[in-house]
This record gives sequence, C-alpha cells and structure tokens, in this order.
Amino acid sequence: MRGLLVGRFQPFHRGHLALVTEIRRAGGADELILGVGSAQLSHTPENPFTSGERIEMIERAVREVGVTAVHAYPLVDVERHAIWVSHVESLVPPFQKVYTNNPLTELLFAKARYPIVNPALVDREPFQGAVIRREMTRSDAWRAWVPSAVVTYLDAIAAVDRLKILDLGGHNARAGRAP
Amino acid sequence: MRGLLVGRFQPFHRGHLALVTEIRRAGGADELILGVGSAQLSHTPENPFTSGERIEMIERAVREVGVTAVHAYPLVDVERHAIWVSHVESLVPPFQKVYTNNPLTELLFAKARYPIVNPALVDREPFQGAVIRREMTRSDAWRAWVPSAVVTYLDAIAAVDRLKILDLGGHNARAGRAP
Amino acid sequence: MRGLLVGRFQPFHRGHLALVTEIRRAGGADELILGVGSAQLSHTPENPFTSGERIEMIERAVREVGVTAVHAYPLVDVERHAIWVSHVESLVPPFQKVYTNNPLTELLFAKARYPIVNPALVDREPFQGAVIRREMTRSDAWRAWVPSAVVTYLDAIAAVDRLKILDLGGHNARAGRAP
Amino acid sequence: MRGLLVGRFQPFHRGHLALVTEIRRAGGADELILGVGSAQLSHTPENPFTSGERIEMIERAVREVGVTAVHAYPLVDVERHAIWVSHVESLVPPFQKVYTNNPLTELLFAKARYPIVNPALVDREPFQGAVIRREMTRSDAWRAWVPSAVVTYLDAIAAVDRLKILDLGGHNARAGRAP
Amino acid sequence: MRGLLVGRFQPFHRGHLALVTEIRRAGGADELILGVGSAQLSHTPENPFTSGERIEMIERAVREVGVTAVHAYPLVDVERHAIWVSHVESLVPPFQKVYTNNPLTELLFAKARYPIVNPALVDREPFQGAVIRREMTRSDAWRAWVPSAVVTYLDAIAAVDRLKILDLGGHNARAGRAP
Amino acid sequence: MRGLLVGRFQPFHRGHLALVTEIRRAGGADELILGVGSAQLSHTPENPFTSGERIEMIERAVREVGVTAVHAYPLVDVERHAIWVSHVESLVPPFQKVYTNNPLTELLFAKARYPIVNPALVDREPFQGAVIRREMTRSDAWRAWVPSAVVTYLDAIAAVDRLKILDLGGHNARAGRAP
Repeated sequence: MRGLLVGRFQPFHRGHLALVTEIRRAGGADELILGVGSAQLSHTPENPFTSGERIEMIERAVREVGVTAVHAYPLVDVERHAIWVSHVESLVPPFQKVYTNNPLTELLFAKARYPIVNPALVDREPFQGAVIRREMTRSDAWRAWVPSAVVTYLDAIAAVDRLKILDLGGHNARAGRAP
Repeated sequence: MRGLLVGRFQPFHRGHLALVTEIRRAGGADELILGVGSAQLSHTPENPFTSGERIEMIERAVREVGVTAVHAYPLVDVERHAIWVSHVESLVPPFQKVYTNNPLTELLFAKARYPIVNPALVDREPFQGAVIRREMTRSDAWRAWVPSAVVTYLDAIAAVDRLKILDLGGHNARAGRAP
Repeated sequence: MRGLLVGRFQPFHRGHLALVTEIRRAGGADELILGVGSAQLSHTPENPFTSGERIEMIERAVREVGVTAVHAYPLVDVERHAIWVSHVESLVPPFQKVYTNNPLTELLFAKARYPIVNPALVDREPFQGAVIRREMTRSDAWRAWVPSAVVTYLDAIAAVDRLKILDLGGHNARAGRAP
Repeated sequence: MRGLLVGRFQPFHRGHLALVTEIRRAGGADELILGVGSAQLSHTPENPFTSGERIEMIERAVREVGVTAVHAYPLVDVERHAIWVSHVESLVPPFQKVYTNNPLTELLFAKARYPIVNPALVDREPFQGAVIRREMTRSDAWRAWVPSAVVTYLDAIAAVDRLKILDLGGHNARAGRAP
Repeated sequence: MRGLLVGRFQPFHRGHLALVTEIRRAGGADELILGVGSAQLSHTPENPFTSGERIEMIERAVREVGVTAVHAYPLVDVERHAIWVSHVESLVPPFQKVYTNNPLTELLFAKARYPIVNPALVDREPFQGAVIRREMTRSDAWRAWVPSAVVTYLDAIAAVDRLKILDLGGHNARAGRAP
Repeated sequence: MRGLLVGRFQPFHRGHLALVTEIRRAGGADELILGVGSAQLSHTPENPFTSGERIEMIERAVREVGVTAVHAYPLVDVERHAIWVSHVESLVPPFQKVYTNNPLTELLFAKARYPIVNPALVDREPFQGAVIRREMTRSDAWRAWVPSAVVTYLDAIAAVDRLKILDLGGHNARAGRAP
C-alpha cells in the first residue's frame, strides 16, 4: 500500500523529516510518495528553490537517516482545485491513502474517496517553511531546523545569498513574474 | 435583443436576483445572459463554488421567482483584460447590450462599442459576496441574504463546512494553488 | 435527473437534433446538458464556428421543434484526458447520466462511475460534421442536413463564405495558430 | 500611418523582402510593423528558428537594402482565432492598415474594421518557406532565395545542420513536444 | 555588441529615459534592447498600459531626444523564474550584456553567464512607476516626471481617466481577472 | 555523477530496460534519472498511459531485474524547444550527463554544454513504442517485447482494452482534445 504526502518543501525541514520517518516507521504505508507542490515555481521569496533542488534535499535527508521507500515527484500547479486530485493521480504512481493535516487537501481527497490519515504533528513552531525562510536572511538559527544533509546542500547552492536577493525583489519576485 | 451581465456569483445572492428580475421586468432585453466569471476557480475563500454549482444556484433562484429567459454560462479567466471582450464574445451567444456597474467592465465593453446600461443598485450592503462568504463561517445571518432556493442548495452541498475549511487554508488556498 | 451529451456541434445538424429529441422524448432525463467541446476554437476548417455561434444554433434548433429543458454550455479543452471528467464536472451543473456513442468518452466517464447510455444512432451518413463542412464549400446539399433554423442562422453569418476562406488557409488555419 | 504585415518568416526570404520594400516604396505606410507569428516555436521542421533569430534576419536584410522604418515584434500564438486580433493589438504599437494575402488574416482583421491591402505578389515559387526549408537539407539552391545578409547569418548559426537534425526528429519534433 | 534592459515601463518615465540615454552615450552597447515585461497585462492598476502602448511611449520618447539604436520588444510572462532567461533569449535578437539594478534579474542572467552592468541610478524618487501611477489619479505633478512626448501620448489615450477607473476596480482588476 | 535519459515510455519496453541496465552496468552514472516526457498526456493512441502508470511500469521493471539507483520523474511538455532544457533542469534533481540517441535532444542539451553519451542501441525493431502499441490491438506478440513485470501490470490495468478503445476514437483522441 502506497501513501501520498503533499507539500511544497521550501525547504525540506526537520518537521517534514519527522513526519516521513514516523509514517514509514508506523508501517501504514509500504512506500511513501512525496508530492512536491508548486513545482514550477522557484526564485521567489515564498518558493525559493526549484523542484529539482527540493527533490535533492529530500533524497539526501532520508538517505542520511536511513529511511527507505520514499519517492519525491514534482507536481506543477494547475491552479484549479476542482481538478487537482485528478491531476495528481495522473502524474504519480497509484496510491491508496493520503497523509495530511491540511483541511483543504483532506476535503479534496476525501471527496475522491481516499482514506485520510492525520499524522500527529511535532511541535510546529519553528518547523514552518515561512519561519525558516525568513530566518535564513537574518541569522544561523535555521541551521538547527533542517536536517544536516540539507544544511550542507543549502550551503553548496548558496541558498542564503539567494534568499537575501529575493527578499529585495519586491512585488514581481513575489508573484513569480518577470523580475 | 440580448443583454449580458457578468459576475462571479460567489454565491448568487438577493442583490443579484433583484438585478436580474429588474432587468427582465424593465423589458430592455428579451433574454439575459449571465456570464459566470472566474469559472475555473473553486474551493478558495474568495471563490468557494465551482462554475457548475453557481449555475445551479442561478437556475434554481430564477425558477423560484418565475423569471424566464435567463441563461448562465461559464467564463474561464484569460487574465488579460485587453483580450477579454473578444474572449467573452467567442464563448457565449451574441448579445447587443451590457449591464454593469463595474467601471472596468464598462471601459472594456464601451471600447468595443457596446451600449452600456448602469442598472439601479439595490442597497449593496449586505448584498456583497465577500460579506456573505465571511458571515457564512460565523452565523446564520447569511440565510436572509440569498434566495431561499439557494439556501436550500447551499445546505445540500454543505457549503458552510466548505467555507470553514477554506478559511483555515491560508495563502495557497487563497491563490488557488496546490493546498 | 440531468443527462450530459458532449459534442463539438460544428455545426449542429439534424443527427444531433434527432438525438436530443429522442433523449428528451424517452424521458430518461428531465433536463439535458449539451457540452460544447473545443469551445475555445473557431475559424479553422474543422472548427469553423465559435462556441457562442454553436450555442445559438442549438437554442434556435430546439426552440423550432419545441423541445425544452436543453441547455448548452461551452467546454474549453484541457488537452489532458486524465483530468477531463473533473474539468467538465466543475464547469456545468451537476448531471447523473452520460449519453454517448464515443468509446473514449464512455471509458472516461465510466471510470468516474457515471451510468452510460448509448443512444440509438440515426443513419450517420450524411449527418457528420466533417461531411457537412466539406459540402458547404461545394453545393447546397448541406441545407437538407441541418435544421432549418440553423440554415437560416448560418446564412445570416455568411457561414459558406467563411468555410471557403478557411479552406484556403492551409496548415496554420488547421492548427488554430496565427494565420 | 502604420501598417501591419504578419508572417512566420521561417526564414525571412527574398519574397518577404520584396514585399516589404514595395510597401515602403509605395508610401502607403510611414512605418511597417512585421509581426513574427508563432514566436514561441523553434527547433521544429516547420519552425526551425527562434523569434529572436528571425528578427535578427529581418533587421539585417532591411538594413542591407537600405529600407527604413520597419520594426519586427514577436507574436506568440494564442491558438484561438476569435481573440487573435485583440491579442496582436495589445502587443504591438497601434497600426491603421493591414497588408495580407492570407484569406483568414483578411477575414479576421476586416471583421475588426481594419482597411486591408492585398500587395501584389512576386512570383511565389520558390519564395516559400516550406520549399526553402526543405531545400536547405538537400542542396545550396536556397542561397539564391534569401537575402545575402540572411545567408550570412544562417551560416553563422549553422542553420543547415540544425535543419538536417530536425528532419530526423520525427513526430515529436514536428509537434514541438519533448524530443 | 547589443545590451538588454528589462522593465515594465508602466509608464516609460524620465528615469527610464535617463538610463537609456546614458547607456547609449557611454558607448558600452551599439544597440539597446528594451524588454517590455509582463507584456500580456494591461488595464490593471499596476499594469495600466498594453505592451503596444508602452512600446509607442518608448519610441516617441527616444525619438524626441534623438537617441537611436533602441528597440523595444514585448516579453509576455512565463511566471517561472527558472526558465525566464531562456524565454527572453528565444524571443528577442541575440544580446551580449545585461543592464540591471534588479538583484533577481542579475542573479538569473549571471547564472546564465551574461556580463552584468549596474547602471548608475538617477535619484529614484519620484521616478518610480508606482509613484507616477498613483499621482496620475490625484494631480498634475506626474507631468514633470515623464518625457514630454509621453505626456502628449498619455493625454491622447485618456490615460488619467483609465487610471481613475482602474483605481475603482478592486481586487479583480488588480489580479487581471474578469472585471 | 547523475545521468539523464528522456523518453515517453509508452509503454516501457525491453529496449528501454536494456538501455537502462547497460548504462547502470557500465558505471558511467551513479544514478540514472528517467524523464517521463509528455507526462500530461494519456488516453490517446500515441500516449495511452498516464505518467503515473508509466512510472509504475519503470519501477516494477527495474526492480524485477535488480537494477538500482534509477528514478523516474514526470516531465510535462512546455511545447517550446528553446526553453525545454531549463524546464527539465528546474524539475528534476541536478544531472551532469545526458544519454540520448535523439538528434534534437542532443542538439538542445549540447547547446546547454552537457556532455552527451550515445548509448549503443539494441536492435530497435520491434522495440519501438509505436510498433508495440499497434500490436497490442491485434495479437499477443507484444508480450515478448516488454518486461514480464510490465506485462503483468498492463494486464492488471486492462491496457489492451484501453488501446482498442482509443484506436476507435479518431481525430480528437489523437489530439488529446475533448473526446
């Protein structure tokens, strides 16, 4: 039985990793699909990293802790919630269960008759993408909030510099439009 | 002579119905086309209902009050105002007159040489979609602001539950992106 | 109970009208939705008429023969069969039954658990859009193959001239690209 | 008074240049806009060159013969003829006259009330893009059919090699899809 | 050697003209390409003018001051920063140098190995599009901030009226959606 | 070092598997990315299977023969060759080498400075998707041409029935439009 977990993973942090590890440990899914949402976006303050960079983070992080049978796939947006479930179903291998704590994700997949599991949340703060992205432009505190393999990768791609630049970019950077 | 009236109808409320009834009663148009704008959007706080659900509301509401010769059509967005009039013209049957109190709609259709009619507005507050959508998550006051046939339909599709869920959804729900 | 029948209706001909009349007469559906496929296309040899013109033809033709409770809606293409059913569901009012003799339409809606009805076909030839469109550039034979209300409308919009022009247009006209 | 002439210019050949020169010489337009159609396409057998490469060809060719007041602009396709005129109007500076021998272009712009001019054609064969593109994979005959400034440029970008490669590419290259 | 300068030019103001004049005067580029960003947008408070109107402003303004070898091209958005440089490269003629003070533009083009030049800025305030657009709905102060040829053109197209109308349009006008 | 191999894999056959096995055996890449092209297409005669089904085939086939470090990702089309390499780079994890025998793929990635490897081809006929798809509607010969794990999967999803239905579907099925 395969499970699905959707997120934007901007970046992939310790909260995500704890979730993945717990799902795989609990044994409810033989394999876990991570759907990388808004895959077409990158280089904006809310979505700084490409889909490829996010998949790289995920692969390094799960390998580092020895978790197996986790596969990440890019999910480009369709910007229409009414067709989103069909869109996901067509892009990734078949799954039979959806892990989510997002009420809208639950609404849409439940309507399509998928069993939903609400995983126990680790203490969310500071494991939130928005908090981490903001902190990356200010101090080194974020380094404790992402898996060490991800820290290494983010340093290798000069992620802090990128976030500082995006922070200066104003309205259009935010919208993903021409700079 | 056919008239056109564009709106998002999220949901179709008594203000809309009063407008439609008055236009049909006044006799300026033998038939009235309702263009359901942003038809591709649904399940967001600003656009909770699908185009199909909105058309269903319209049909039930006009039937309830015995108004005839009103037809609703979905208008997906093109996100480019400069081509929007051509887009509408291509999708719905020919019309010869545009009813609107929206200054931009008037600007665009007037540029394309359509006669414009500014219908007398009923007291707008509380007949505004945004007010009604917000109230739906808080109290039963909204039930007085939409036609009774629409109240029945909204209850049948558990609209209040949907709006409460969307309200929790944050940034991405707002943008119509992956939840 | 509402039924759905999808077609491109380029143009709406006597074969279509016979189908609609029979469905309404047989009483299997209280209301029939006609989904006007490839609604975004027009002015190509295979898709000469806009969605609006096609809806106009349908409304005139059913009115002429006194058939009621038939509503046509534009369906713009999504060019992805895997999400097409969700797309249709989101745009038009709820339906509970699908009328079709197209094997792919049947496959897709059956997968989504809709009851399928295969209506008895009237002798297809010459009631085919491609045959009629070709004949319109050559002789008056087509006039017998479309409802008289549609003949009148096609004459009013100079449809024969349009088809002759499109016939000259070559590759790009065919593809719907810049002429 | 500005005139508009739309083409794909794959490549810009002597027939195009003769047309441009004659329009400018005749004095019917103080400035001539060349709309580079299907600007988003390149690296296919029918559309081998990017919009940028085609504009480069045009600029070099008109400069070589001393023709002035000719400006080329990219026109990405909208794949919907019904909105195409509005699309063009929004992208390029205002024009008051359309030069074309394409019946569909004439139909669409005439409907939008533009004066149409049908320029006298130079003997078309061999001044056709399709003929030139095919010949480029076979012999040097094409060199006589394009302006010498364009020959120089095509050699500089190894155009013949590109066309031979595209010719091998089969169905997907033709469709502009992933190779 | 050609240079590229990207902006939205809503409208083209004296700050833009000073930049263009200085680049051409300094001699670092034999020709300057102005990429008109978000070319598909118009009739919104942030993007009131079409691409064609903006190119018209640019052409009139540079002609007025006698600056030559400046060409403007429409750049429709792709809304994906990761492919934006390739998108620009495909649409406009080849360039070898990028002029920008926008950190994200610099990041993206530097990654693609283009030499970057940061032009000296004239005192920015009040030479900012947002300031000028807002002032156009309030007083005549904006007339000092745009080239006189642009003032004339903006008056000819009743730009102040348009901006006042857009200002009334609320959320959907802002988003470029159906009014 | 990661390698990239792009294909449509409609279906994943023994020729594909031999290629993958040889690349992994030869040791030129520690990990191999399979880019599943035209991922958005399915249920057409040329593209019968969804991206998810194709990834499922790939995973089962490589597991069956014990090949590891092979990851498949969906690549939706951009339909513009000039930006295709950037598109791929943004969606999948970083790769340093491209395996291909397609001349256009080689042209595009070589232009972006990737090392190209032309893998030795196994005798192509009958290891071609088009041949296999056609044979699936006619006989059982195709069963010898795809890995046995894929045969099992194709039987489980009733692939032969689907192909026979698509074969009946005519022009629109081919184009991926509304049936």
